[in-house]
Amino acid sequence: MITLPLAAGGPVAEALVDLFIVLLAAKIGDEIFKRIRQPTIIGEILAGVIVGPAVFGLVGVTEVLEVFAELGVVFLLFWVGLETRITDLREVGSSAVRTGVLGVVLPFAGGFGLGVALGESTSTSAFLGAALVATSVGITSAVLIELGALTSRAGRTIIGAAIVDDILAMLILAVAVGLAAGGTNVVGLLVVVVLALSFVAFFALGGTAVMRRWPGTLAAPKFSESPLLPAVILCLGLAALAAEIGLAAIIGAFLAGMMVAETKEQHPVEEEVAPLYAFFPPFFFVVIGMQLDLEALAQPGTILLLVGVTALAAATKFVGAWLGARSLGKAEAAFVGVGMVPRGEVGIIVAGIGEASGVIGPRVFAIVVGMSILTTLLVPPVLRVLAKRLPPDRVARGLQPS
Amino acid sequence: MITLPLAAGGPVAEALVDLFIVLLAAKIGDEIFKRIRQPTIIGEILAGVIVGPAVFGLVGVTEVLEVFAELGVVFLLFWVGLETRITDLREVGSSAVRTGVLGVVLPFAGGFGLGVALGESTSTSAFLGAALVATSVGITSAVLIELGALTSRAGRTIIGAAIVDDILAMLILAVAVGLAAGGTNVVGLLVVVVLALSFVAFFALGGTAVMRRWPGTLAAPKFSESPLLPAVILCLGLAALAAEIGLAAIIGAFLAGMMVAETKEQHPVEEEVAPLYAFFPPFFFVVIGMQLDLEALAQPGTILLLVGVTALAAATKFVGAWLGARSLGKAEAAFVGVGMVPRGEVGIIVAGIGEASGVIGPRVFAIVVGMSILTTLLVPPVLRVLAKRLPPDRVARGLQPS
Repeated sequence: MITLPLAAGGPVAEALVDLFIVLLAAKIGDEIFKRIRQPTIIGEILAGVIVGPAVFGLVGVTEVLEVFAELGVVFLLFWVGLETRITDLREVGSSAVRTGVLGVVLPFAGGFGLGVALGESTSTSAFLGAALVATSVGITSAVLIELGALTSRAGRTIIGAAIVDDILAMLILAVAVGLAAGGTNVVGLLVVVVLALSFVAFFALGGTAVMRRWPGTLAAPKFSESPLLPAVILCLGLAALAAEIGLAAIIGAFLAGMMVAETKEQHPVEEEVAPLYAFFPPFFFVVIGMQLDLEALAQPGTILLLVGVTALAAATKFVGAWLGARSLGKAEAAFVGVGMVPRGEVGIIVAGIGEASGVIGPRVFAIVVGMSILTTLLVPPVLRVLAKRLPPDRVARGLQPS
Repeated sequence: MITLPLAAGGPVAEALVDLFIVLLAAKIGDEIFKRIRQPTIIGEILAGVIVGPAVFGLVGVTEVLEVFAELGVVFLLFWVGLETRITDLREVGSSAVRTGVLGVVLPFAGGFGLGVALGESTSTSAFLGAALVATSVGITSAVLIELGALTSRAGRTIIGAAIVDDILAMLILAVAVGLAAGGTNVVGLLVVVVLALSFVAFFALGGTAVMRRWPGTLAAPKFSESPLLPAVILCLGLAALAAEIGLAAIIGAFLAGMMVAETKEQHPVEEEVAPLYAFFPPFFFVVIGMQLDLEALAQPGTILLLVGVTALAAATKFVGAWLGARSLGKAEAAFVGVGMVPRGEVGIIVAGIGEASGVIGPRVFAIVVGMSILTTLLVPPVLRVLAKRLPPDRVARGLQPS
């Protein structure tokens, strides 16, 4: 039969099919989990497991899907930034930093110790530690939004801590990569630290101050009739810049959101961003599920190790974050501790870098991916129960877009 | 220096940078052309020329950008579909078909004749003819939207004719590809025709009837709180299906838009789609500009040939379409004739297929791309002047989203 991709080249037409399948699967998973009153992101991740290589293999992880997944978490964090005022973060600053630091130290020690105990090399152990470190701020904020707890004090502590967490994770990963390459460049590390901190400080303080001072910047009457594209351009620009200097792109997107939030009185930015926030994030969750490698996990010993690593990852993160957030009181500290547990995409990416540099084998990679998905699947139901115990005045304005 | 793409892999971070540059360039081009009161899509195409390989080479045409460009024209035609009722098309049906057919026959004859006159082979001449055939419904509808003339009788005739045009172009391309491969499969061609016509008829008539009968389908209270994702999934699904059966993806998107339009009384679909319609189409226009190859055109003889081919393409299309639309009266026939002239992406794609099969050389390819861009740049100002002469009751409700 003759087929002629007239207006769509072959690969472009295939990409359209992939995007269609992923979005449809996400929507079905979402609707089912809404019906059974469970967190919808679990439905979307499981949809990814089902359409992905693990079960039906309808879609594979292509570069285009990776970019859509990245834009998914970028717009997710942009949305979180839109809901966050810099003053909200200042209020929880010290407990967020404590939570972030302790929530990094313990999981790293746990993963590194496990690696050494299993007889792995120092650099493999360092990678295992690094993969256990980073909280997925994407997953966590999606759950917080769904619970309407994003702007609660505990929610803001989690967001702040997750950012501290991301910066520390970047440093640990830099050390692990250095070890794998045979040595660490201390001066280089210092440059990365200074650059990362300056980036965050510059846009979190300076950027929001500029926007507060001139809130019309994004859509002055002479400049543009809608603030949407300027806001999105700022978001993509800071995300790209953050990624270029070695930070997570989502930190840039979050900072851009915080900047735009200062102009909210002027424009209905959220209403206009909402459709992008509805369109892109499902790709992020489905692609996470697509990475699961059931075959590699099907060996008897591997499953046991997966359960052990997951328990270790959950326990060390919970204890560390809980210790850091203790000053908020029992109920909130527990909420923060559990909220920091999901590893999501970050653990997967760290393990991917480890695999690419040959330090981590396919078995450990599959375990880290499995752990990331398991922590992500287990947390939302627990968090929902704990949310009911939060001090009532701490559960602030519900934020889920329609 | 150490750089660590923590949450973005190398290629993903690069894609973010590309998307940022393209969107920023589009916005700047758009604002400048708004200021000088010229059609904004010209500003966006020229922005593509400037950031693309022709001038600064900041961005190249990657697969990711191609997918974004395709989604751009898909959401553009989805929007056009949202503004179109099947009854609107029926009213202009016969003149649209005449316009489409005559607007294809003359340019093909012109291109084929030119090829033969220049001493090219039959299959090269057939490709040149095919490249001159297809009107860019994407470009034209963007201009019509900007002029507020999309739902005027002349505007609807153009949209209808462009769809007829796309189907005929697909057939001619099939014949040209067959010739290049050494023979045409008549049965295969018939299958393509029947498939294409059934696809269009099935969704244009059946699809809209279903939606009119059960307008709650997209967002029944039990099913979904917002019609956005169901509508977008329908759009991507029909676009992918159209591309798979060899039609242009945009025809599927247009049909999906027409189906969703039947539910407009129930839901504010347009408001929710508007941000996607603001975000994606700029990629389409910028990527068109990025394809211009100034170096290949810089030879003295080539420029002359480019001017000749452009004049031929414009004149044959204008005369053919004008003849087809004559029954609408002088002013509207002229508007339709000019409105059909832009070739945009379709000519470029046809030439690309010809180049890939070795029938068209790089010089002819550059000429076809140049002709597509030139016809696209020249038409909007003329159309704006002609719009003022349209019968006043024929310029219907203004449609540009805020």
